[in-house]
Amino acid sequence: MDCELCHGDGGTVLWQNDLCRVVSVDEPGLPGFLRVILNRHEREMTDLAERDRAAFMAVVFAVEAHVRRCLEPDKMNLASLGNMTPHLHWHVIPRWRDDRHFPGPVWSPARHDAPVPEARAAACARMAATLAGALGPARA
Amino acid sequence: MDCELCHGDGGTVLWQNDLCRVVSVDEPGLPGFLRVILNRHEREMTDLAERDRAAFMAVVFAVEAHVRRCLEPDKMNLASLGNMTPHLHWHVIPRWRDDRHFPGPVWSPARHDAPVPEARAAACARMAATLAGALGPARA
Repeated sequence: MDCELCHGDGGTVLWQNDLCRVVSVDEPGLPGFLRVILNRHEREMTDLAERDRAAFMAVVFAVEAHVRRCLEPDKMNLASLGNMTPHLHWHVIPRWRDDRHFPGPVWSPARHDAPVPEARAAACARMAATLAGALGPARA
Repeated sequence: MDCELCHGDGGTVLWQNDLCRVVSVDEPGLPGFLRVILNRHEREMTDLAERDRAAFMAVVFAVEAHVRRCLEPDKMNLASLGNMTPHLHWHVIPRWRDDRHFPGPVWSPARHDAPVPEARAAACARMAATLAGALGPARA
C-alpha cells in the first residue's frame, strides 16, 4: 500500500511512543502547526479499540495543553480528516485573530499573506523544542 | 454574552443529555452533517475536566459509529474549530468521493454542485431518525 504516513514520518518527529508520534509541519503562515499521527495504519477513530482511542486522544489533548501553555493562542483547532491520506492523524493548530485564514478554518482561502510576527515564530520554536519534556517519558 | 450556541440549539436536536446534544445541520450538498455541542459554554477541550472530556468524546465517537453503520461513507471527518463561535462543538461529517468538496475539507472551495443522490439523502434521513435509539437512554 502506498501510504505516505506508513512510509514516512510526516514531519519532524518531536515525540513518539508505541502508539503514535507528534510531528511539526511546515505550513507557511501557520506556525506551531502540529500533527499527532497513529503509527499503524487505521482509517477511522471508530476502527480503534476503546483503549487505543483513549490513549491516542490523551496525546492529542496533552499536545493541545502544551501548545496553549506556550503560545496562548486565540483559539485551538483540532481535526481528523484524512480524505487524501486515510491514515489516522490529528491536526492540532493554534490560531490567532491575525493569522492568514482567521476566522476561517486553515483550509479556507487565505485572507492576507502578512508575515508571521517574529516573536510568535520564536515562541513556536520554543514550544516545539520543549514538547518532549512536557509530554514526558511516562507516556512513552 | 452573545453566544449563539448558548442561546439556541444550533440545529435540530436529535439526542441530548446533561453534558451535550447532537444536532443535525442543514448544509447544502453535505447530507448527514451532525454536530455534537457541549451544553455549557467552554472554549477549548483542555478547559474541560478529564471526565467531561472523555464523556464528550464518547458521544462524538458513538455518533461516528452510528453514522458509519448507517451510511458507510468513504471517510469520516471530525473537527473542533470554533473560531467564529468559541463554544465547544464537534463537526461529525460523513464524506463521499463524489461529494462537492472531496478530497478537500468541507471548508475548501466546492468542486462541483451536483445534487446529492436521492438514495443517499434518504439514508441520511433514516440515520438521523434512528440516532437517538442507537445512542440510547443509558448515555443520558
